[in-house]
Amino acid sequence: MKPKLNLPRLLALASTCFAFFVVTASAEDAVVEKWGRFEILLNGPAEGNPFMEVELEATFTNGFETKTVSGFYDGDGVYRIRFMPEATGEWRYRTQSSAWELSNQVGEFEVVAPSSDNHGPVSVYNTYHFAYADETPYWVMGTTSYTWTHRPAEFEELTLKTLEESPFNKLRMCVFPQTHGTKMDQSQPMPPERFPFEGEGTDPNYERFNPEFFQHLEMRVQNLQDLGIEADLILFHPYDDDHIWGLDHMDDATEERYIRYIVARLSSYRNVWWSIANEFDFVRNKTDADWDRNFQVVVDADPYGHLRSIHNGKEIYDNNKPWVTHASIQNGAAADTVTAAQLYRDVYRKPVVYDELEYEGNHDLRWAQLTGEDLVHRFWAATAAGTYGGHSEFIFDDEDTSQVVWLGQGGELKGDSPERLAFLLEILENGPLGGFEPIDKWHWDPTVGQPGVQYLTYFGRQAPEEWEFKLYKGLEAGMKFKVEIIDAWNMTITPVKGVFEIGEKKDYHHYDTKGRSIQLDGKPYQALRITRVN
Amino acid sequence: MKPKLNLPRLLALASTCFAFFVVTASAEDAVVEKWGRFEILLNGPAEGNPFMEVELEATFTNGFETKTVSGFYDGDGVYRIRFMPEATGEWRYRTQSSAWELSNQVGEFEVVAPSSDNHGPVSVYNTYHFAYADETPYWVMGTTSYTWTHRPAEFEELTLKTLEESPFNKLRMCVFPQTHGTKMDQSQPMPPERFPFEGEGTDPNYERFNPEFFQHLEMRVQNLQDLGIEADLILFHPYDDDHIWGLDHMDDATEERYIRYIVARLSSYRNVWWSIANEFDFVRNKTDADWDRNFQVVVDADPYGHLRSIHNGKEIYDNNKPWVTHASIQNGAAADTVTAAQLYRDVYRKPVVYDELEYEGNHDLRWAQLTGEDLVHRFWAATAAGTYGGHSEFIFDDEDTSQVVWLGQGGELKGDSPERLAFLLEILENGPLGGFEPIDKWHWDPTVGQPGVQYLTYFGRQAPEEWEFKLYKGLEAGMKFKVEIIDAWNMTITPVKGVFEIGEKKDYHHYDTKGRSIQLDGKPYQALRITRVN
Repeated sequence: MKPKLNLPRLLALASTCFAFFVVTASAEDAVVEKWGRFEILLNGPAEGNPFMEVELEATFTNGFETKTVSGFYDGDGVYRIRFMPEATGEWRYRTQSSAWELSNQVGEFEVVAPSSDNHGPVSVYNTYHFAYADETPYWVMGTTSYTWTHRPAEFEELTLKTLEESPFNKLRMCVFPQTHGTKMDQSQPMPPERFPFEGEGTDPNYERFNPEFFQHLEMRVQNLQDLGIEADLILFHPYDDDHIWGLDHMDDATEERYIRYIVARLSSYRNVWWSIANEFDFVRNKTDADWDRNFQVVVDADPYGHLRSIHNGKEIYDNNKPWVTHASIQNGAAADTVTAAQLYRDVYRKPVVYDELEYEGNHDLRWAQLTGEDLVHRFWAATAAGTYGGHSEFIFDDEDTSQVVWLGQGGELKGDSPERLAFLLEILENGPLGGFEPIDKWHWDPTVGQPGVQYLTYFGRQAPEEWEFKLYKGLEAGMKFKVEIIDAWNMTITPVKGVFEIGEKKDYHHYDTKGRSIQLDGKPYQALRITRVN
Repeated sequence: MKPKLNLPRLLALASTCFAFFVVTASAEDAVVEKWGRFEILLNGPAEGNPFMEVELEATFTNGFETKTVSGFYDGDGVYRIRFMPEATGEWRYRTQSSAWELSNQVGEFEVVAPSSDNHGPVSVYNTYHFAYADETPYWVMGTTSYTWTHRPAEFEELTLKTLEESPFNKLRMCVFPQTHGTKMDQSQPMPPERFPFEGEGTDPNYERFNPEFFQHLEMRVQNLQDLGIEADLILFHPYDDDHIWGLDHMDDATEERYIRYIVARLSSYRNVWWSIANEFDFVRNKTDADWDRNFQVVVDADPYGHLRSIHNGKEIYDNNKPWVTHASIQNGAAADTVTAAQLYRDVYRKPVVYDELEYEGNHDLRWAQLTGEDLVHRFWAATAAGTYGGHSEFIFDDEDTSQVVWLGQGGELKGDSPERLAFLLEILENGPLGGFEPIDKWHWDPTVGQPGVQYLTYFGRQAPEEWEFKLYKGLEAGMKFKVEIIDAWNMTITPVKGVFEIGEKKDYHHYDTKGRSIQLDGKPYQALRITRVN
C-alpha cells in the first residue's frame, strides 16, 4: 500500500551525480542513546503540496541490521526523518527521495547504551504480560484522558503535574479533538487549540496536514516519556458527532495518508502504543474491513512494531487477528468478577487490558458513576484474573471553576482510587517474574501467581472471616510459605505469624500440615499474599 | 487436497466406450424426500486395496443446481454414493471413477416434499441461534454419551429408548472408541465391539477401513434421526491413552483419508454435525495447524456444509476462524453466571453452546459432581445469556449391575436434571422467534428476549423476594405486559394477576405506571416471563 520509490532509477541518478549532491544532513545529535531518537533535518521544496508530492525515506544500517524509515514534511520547506536505533554502535544512513535536494544525503552517528530510565519500548512478554525491551517488567497501570492535549498550555502542564504525582504509567489519549463539552453536553463545547489538517475545524483540507498540531502532540508524547508514561495513542474515534470536524468519515486514502504521516512522525518515540480506534464500532460507516486495513497500514509503516490494539464499544473486534498485539477491552461487568475477567485471556492468548471498566464518577450516565471502591475492586479482580485494569474518572465538581473532567480534558484527579492503585502497583512490582497467572482457572479460585513461588488470592466482595490454608498446582510436601493479609482498600499489609508447611496433595490441594486457617476481618476487598520461604 | 480425477481422460474414454458401458445404477429408491438420502449402489473391483486405489464420485443435477459427491468403498466389491437432495423435482446423475466398471453410470430419480418430521439439516440462524433448513427453530438441548455406539446391541437399544423418553435433541458422540473403563479406570477397560480400521485394536492397518464399523455407526445415526436427534459426531479425541489403539496419533494423510471416508459415508444424513475433536488440546502432538487442516478437509469434503465445531479442554481454539460455525465450549464456571456466560457471544458473533458445563454426578473428579440443581441452573444461566447448555451425567451406582455411566456408555439416565431440562425446552419453544437475546448485555441484567415482545429474567441463586417491574430497550409508554413466575427447579409457571403498563423512560428503564413490584418466593432458581399483550 505504501507508495514505492523508484529506487533503481534514484540509485542510478545517485551514482552519476554523487560528487555534486552529497551533503551531510544536519542531524540534531551525532550521539544518541539506544531506543533514543536520531533525527535528520533536511531542507527541500516548499512549493506545491509537499505532503502529497514528495516521497522521502532513509535507510539506516549498522552493518548487521538495516531499516528503512519514512520521513515527513514538517512545513516551511523542512523535512525530517526520525529513527529509533535498537542496537548500540556505529550507524550510517542514506536518504532516498522523489526530490533531488533530499536524495542521497548520508551521515553516521554513534548509538550509546541507554541511560538508566530508558528501558526501551514495551512489548508482549510471557504471552499475557508486558516488558520493556531490556526485559524490565512493565506492569500496566493505565488511565485515560482523551483530549488533554487540546487544552491551553497551562492546563496541559497541570495535567502533566498530576500525572507525575500519580501511579499511572500509561495514558490513553486521542490524537483528534472531540466535540463533547464538559458534561458530555454539546451546548458547552470546548473547541480545541489546533486541528490536524489545514482549515479551521469544519472545513478541513485533507491533503495538507497542520505541522503545528503534530509538533504539539509530539511535545506532549515526549513529556509523557520523560515521566515514564506510555502514550497509548488513539488514532480514530467517534466523538465528532454529526461529523462537525470531518475527522470520523475520511475516505480510505486519507486515512492511510494520515496513519503514515503520524507513524513517520511518532514511531521513533519509544513510549508510543497505537490504539487504532476508540469504541471503533461507534464510528458510523466503518466496517471491520476498514479497521483491518488501518491495522495493516500501521504494521507496514511502523519499523519498530509498537504495540497495537483497538478498543470496543458494544461490539468486540476479532482480537485474534495477527496484527493485534493485545486486547484493549471495554467491559465493566467482565472486570467485576475474577471468573468473568479470565475468559478473554484464553480466547485471545494475548495480554488483556480492561482499558475501560467504567469510571469513578458522579455522572448520571451509568458508565461514569463507579465509587472508588468499585473501581479499585475491578482493578484487583482484573489482577486476580491475570489481566490488567484501566482507570479514569468523571467527577464533576460544581465548585471547581475548571468545569472539566479528567476523562475528557485532564487537569486534576479528584477520586479516591489513584492512591489505592499506587498501592496495587507496588503489589504488582513485588510479584513473581513472569506475571500473575491464574493458578486454577475456570474454578472460581481468585488466585494468581506462579506455582510454588507466590500466590495472590483476592476475595473481593466475599468478605470471608477465615480461609483454610490450601494451595494448588506445582507443589511438593515440605514447601514452606509465609502469609500476608492485604487490605486493598485501606492499603495495609499485615504479616500472619508463623510459617505454613504443606503436606501431600489431598484431592486437588495441598493443606497446611497443622491444618491451620487464616483469620480474616470479614470485610470486603481483602487479599492474601502467600510467598514461598524455603 | 482432494485427489483429483483426470476427468478429461475419463470423459474421452466415456465417449468412446459409451455404447458398451452405460448401465443404470441400482439405486435403492427412485423416489426420495427432500433432505432424504438417495444412494447409488455399484459393484466394482474387490481386489487390491480399493480404499486406497479406487476413486469414485457422482455429479447430480436438477438442471439448476449441480453437486459432485464422493462415493466410498463398502467392502466385498460394493461401492456406494450417497446424496442428500436439497430441492424437489427431477434429478439425474452420472458417475466418474478411476475404475471403468464404476464410470459413467447414469440414472434419475424424483425428489418429493419432505414428510412432516423432516425439517432438513440444522444451520446457524440469526447469528447466535439455530434453525432447520425449512426455518423451523431448533433450540439446542444437548447431551453427551461418548461411546454409546461401542456397546453390545442390546445396551445400545436401551440408550436409544432412554433418549426417546428424554428432552434431548442433540447427542455428542465419538466415532472412535475410548480406552477409559467404567470409572475412568484403566483396570476396568470395556473393549469396543468394532474398530474403524482393519486389525484388532492395537495394530490397525490405516490403509483399510472396516466397513462394518461404519455401517454400524450409520445405523445408529439413522436411529437418532428417527428420534429427531442431531448427531454431533466427534471425529477425533484424546481418550486413547498411551496410544493403545493408534487412533490419536495418525499421520496427516491418514487423518485426511479418514475424514474423507466418513464424510462420504455420512454427510447425506441430515442430522449430522461435525465436531472436529473433543478436548482437542489434550490430543498430544497435534497443533492448532493440524486442527485447521482437518476443518478445511471437512469443508472441502462435505457438499452440504453441516455444522462444524471443535471442543476445548483447557485451551480454546480460535472459534473466529471462518470454518467454525459455532463455539462448542467446555467451561463450567463461565456457564454458572449470566454475565460470564454472555462473554463468548460477543467475541465470536456465532452461536455459543456450552456443550460441557460439567456433569451431574457423584464422582470424586470435580468435573463430574454437579448436583441436579447446579446443572439445571447452568442451563438456565446459559439461556439467560443468549447461549445454550449441554447435559451429561456421571452417576455411578454400585447397585446397578451395568457398571456404566451415561457420559461414557449410555444406558439409562439416573439424574434429577433431565425432566427439568424438558421443562426448560418448553420455555425455549414458547420463546420469541429470533431467539432469546441479551436485552442489556454487560450490565448484570439476567434478561433475554426480544425487545417489546417477550422478556425472560432468570434470578439464579439470587433468590429475591420481590422485583420492581421495569423493562429495558425497544419500548414505548403504553405497552402492556403479562407476567408469569417460573420456578425452574420445581417446574411451575404461575401467572401474576393483572396487566402491567409501562410509562415513559426514566433514566434507562420503563417502569410500571402504577409502580408495582412482583412478589417472589425468596427461593433460588426463580424466573419471570414477561410477555407483551397489546
